[in-house]
Amino acid sequence: MAGILADKKVLVKDEAEGSQIYNKGYFGNPLSGGGLELDLLDAIYLLEAERLEIRSNNNPVSHAMLMSEGVKAINEFEIQYLVFRDMRMRGYVVRRGPEPGDFHVFPRGGAPKKTPSKWWLLAISERRIFDYGEFSKILDQVEKSKKHLLVALVDEEGDITYYECVRKPPRGNLHSNPLKSQIKGILLNDRVLVEGHAWVNLLQKSEFFGKKVWEALQLSLCEALYLVERGDMNIVNAKTKRAINADTLKRKAVEVQKDFHLRYRVYCDLKKNNMLVKTGFKYGSHFRAYKGDPDVYHAKYLVHAVEKDFRTSWPELSRIIRLAHGVKKEIAFARVLERSVEYLRLKRVRP
Amino acid sequence: MAGILADKKVLVKDEAEGSQIYNKGYFGNPLSGGGLELDLLDAIYLLEAERLEIRSNNNPVSHAMLMSEGVKAINEFEIQYLVFRDMRMRGYVVRRGPEPGDFHVFPRGGAPKKTPSKWWLLAISERRIFDYGEFSKILDQVEKSKKHLLVALVDEEGDITYYECVRKPPRGNLHSNPLKSQIKGILLNDRVLVEGHAWVNLLQKSEFFGKKVWEALQLSLCEALYLVERGDMNIVNAKTKRAINADTLKRKAVEVQKDFHLRYRVYCDLKKNNMLVKTGFKYGSHFRAYKGDPDVYHAKYLVHAVEKDFRTSWPELSRIIRLAHGVKKEIAFARVLERSVEYLRLKRVRP
Repeated sequence: MAGILADKKVLVKDEAEGSQIYNKGYFGNPLSGGGLELDLLDAIYLLEAERLEIRSNNNPVSHAMLMSEGVKAINEFEIQYLVFRDMRMRGYVVRRGPEPGDFHVFPRGGAPKKTPSKWWLLAISERRIFDYGEFSKILDQVEKSKKHLLVALVDEEGDITYYECVRKPPRGNLHSNPLKSQIKGILLNDRVLVEGHAWVNLLQKSEFFGKKVWEALQLSLCEALYLVERGDMNIVNAKTKRAINADTLKRKAVEVQKDFHLRYRVYCDLKKNNMLVKTGFKYGSHFRAYKGDPDVYHAKYLVHAVEKDFRTSWPELSRIIRLAHGVKKEIAFARVLERSVEYLRLKRVRP
Repeated sequence: MAGILADKKVLVKDEAEGSQIYNKGYFGNPLSGGGLELDLLDAIYLLEAERLEIRSNNNPVSHAMLMSEGVKAINEFEIQYLVFRDMRMRGYVVRRGPEPGDFHVFPRGGAPKKTPSKWWLLAISERRIFDYGEFSKILDQVEKSKKHLLVALVDEEGDITYYECVRKPPRGNLHSNPLKSQIKGILLNDRVLVEGHAWVNLLQKSEFFGKKVWEALQLSLCEALYLVERGDMNIVNAKTKRAINADTLKRKAVEVQKDFHLRYRVYCDLKKNNMLVKTGFKYGSHFRAYKGDPDVYHAKYLVHAVEKDFRTSWPELSRIIRLAHGVKKEIAFARVLERSVEYLRLKRVRP
């Protein structure tokens, strides 16, 4: 017996066939009077799997007709279907969920109403915009129900990339302690130079500050300002030979790096979390962050400082994540809020 | 005898010492009356190498003092020095060159005035902006003198990444021929579906169009429009069941993908150059382009379509290039001009 297409649903009236379909994969919703009501996603999948014939006014319904019905009813239906299909083929039980996720995904062997769902799954077209504020609200809801969020990003060819999203901040073991020293730094244009063997050694050995060039140590502007604010360093301007204080240094830093304030907020927050922080330029991000001594720990994170209302395209985001993945690092977006920094870690996964 | 610092130059008056310095590495400019005039870059490098002492008013001059002099005289002097030093340490003869490059680099064992220079070298801080228009003008000049351009990008820690820049467009062997067919496509939201074994096969086997999902073929909007414009395809809107022409398809495409026109211009240009073109989403770029059959040729290029006046940060550019490099592909920026598409290929190199 065939399922009947009516009003964006497919009805399987035959009780035996209905329960067979439901019991093998938990498709659709069993009706109280017997039979099974299938969503269009279920119906297309079962048609492809040759587990169900579908008719409308006694004529057979094709794959393309069902897709067209879906597209008429739901924006981005094709995106949803591609993700639904992929996860089903991977052996997961996938069911439509309430907002904000598109789907609930149950672990392999699990069953709705018996097993708790493993993920909330969001099916997203590569053409959508990533809006940090909106995304954060979704994560609030997901975390409130103690789930994990899985994002399935669908490209123009229908290929899918999955990302797991976590908000825990990175933490390390490198405790930050004032050196109780009065190190002299010379401000060049966009870096600070420290000369003298004792100072160079102290800075390198305590918290791995700076980078040695010949016998001098070059500090980044973040490092230098951090040391000044901690009371460990006095800075002289190379051009004027005059001493400059923290405020002047900040002003100069903003001149060469417009978003310096944003970056510095994140630098300090990572230091507070006992991370070792270095520039992430070579990886196209703002910082690389180690849990401690870089000879022991490889850089674990690439950290990207972003504004509170950060928005970008998903392909751009995808590029950042892929790059981190390629060099065996994890990407962490650091969203600078008024009083705190919020982290979002996105990991490519194969579910 | 020491060199004397005066007016941003260092003068080596002793004739023997001057010619020894010049002959071993071609530092500075020999003076007609004997002796050698050194640039600050030369002087700092020779000081570090302990090949020269430098004095001013009979007092010894330190590394930091020379750096400070340089910074006072030249914006981004420290960037120039880091690049100069790195290339010198790699064994190249590096000399200040005329605009637009900062330096001329001579091959190892080569000599100025005898050997032609290998590269024009541009030393750039990661904080600068990449402006395609400006960059293109530099390349015009470099190519006019039949040289290659090498860009040295310096990060906050002084680490340097080198990029070689070439403007040749990618070319392949996959000739594009009309199928003389009237294939029926169904427009979903952001892709076009083709059903029917014969059509699916024809599209796949001729020029590797589309991606198979179950027994149907999904075409990207670029592919579909290309086939419509070539006269091989008629399209029906899934929602309205009405036929739509090329103009309507274009309009719909722009609705889902704002920069569709830009991308399509590049798609067509690559097809004209006999490349096989697929989406580059998974790599965070617009297209991946193969020289032919993907089973034979791996995707050689990741292609990024950009506006004529494209501007971005160097770290962003660096990320794009690094990603391509990581997946063994070459990045090509495709700049869409009024009547043509200009390509810029950037390759990470270790000089």
